Amino acid sequence: MTLYFEDLAVGRRFATAPATLSEAQIVEYAEIYDPQPIHIDRAAAAKGHYGGIIASGHQTLAIGFAQWIRLGHYRDSSLGGPALDEVRWSKPVRPGDMLETTVEVVEARPSASRPDRGIVVLGFTIATKAAGTVCSYRTTTFVKRRPAA
Amino acid sequence: MTLYFEDLAVGRRFATAPATLSEAQIVEYAEIYDPQPIHIDRAAAAKGHYGGIIASGHQTLAIGFAQWIRLGHYRDSSLGGPALDEVRWSKPVRPGDMLETTVEVVEARPSASRPDRGIVVLGFTIATKAAGTVCSYRTTTFVKRRPAA
Repeated sequence: MTLYFEDLAVGRRFATAPATLSEAQIVEYAEIYDPQPIHIDRAAAAKGHYGGIIASGHQTLAIGFAQWIRLGHYRDSSLGGPALDEVRWSKPVRPGDMLETTVEVVEARPSASRPDRGIVVLGFTIATKAAGTVCSYRTTTFVKRRPAA
Repeated sequence: MTLYFEDLAVGRRFATAPATLSEAQIVEYAEIYDPQPIHIDRAAAAKGHYGGIIASGHQTLAIGFAQWIRLGHYRDSSLGGPALDEVRWSKPVRPGDMLETTVEVVEARPSASRPDRGIVVLGFTIATKAAGTVCSYRTTTFVKRRPAA
């Protein structure tokens, strides 16, 4: 269900569907977007600090964002995102970890220059039951105001 | 060639090989990681603000980072990255755009707690000849100090 600027009050929270990344998905992603041994080379990763392959941090943040998009709240209201801030990777993500992403509205203000939209900052937290928070960040999006009835 | 903390003086700059994203790569990525119509639905995107499909911002930042990794400077010296800050998407990226990524050392300090490493902040700028900067950000990485000879 599409949510408009007026629906996104500071403090409103959303849970998304859990997601997992398989070893094959981690390697396939990293071969293109983050080709470091820790993400693509099982033998090298086994000898390294984490004892096995871990996901690219960019892949972790993206899969959390994807789960938010899949809720459909921005389907007809997003006008694009100019900024991403304060990405923190606090724990490794391993193949099969169940990633639970929660999203909270942390800022919401009308645009000073464009009356058709507001500016919304969402705080993302991606966590596993075992490790707690593995990644967090803040996204900024231009969001349509609710059309007149 | 691996570069260590001592090699990464503030102000040192690197150019990477150009990269492009095809429409198929943009759609394939976004189906998994950013399933918004502007990235995956050619008909909807044609009617939208940009007149066609544009790349997910997360994909743009990741391909720029990948081109840095492909230089090999972090191959044997990176100890992982805890943070990504100040990501700004200033222009859309379209299929076939030639993306040129430059990387500059913007901060470098020894770790206060771990004598084997330093903390390096790299500033990324991804640009096209036609549009100028399309994306910029800062990454933080733990980087090994040069081993004793």
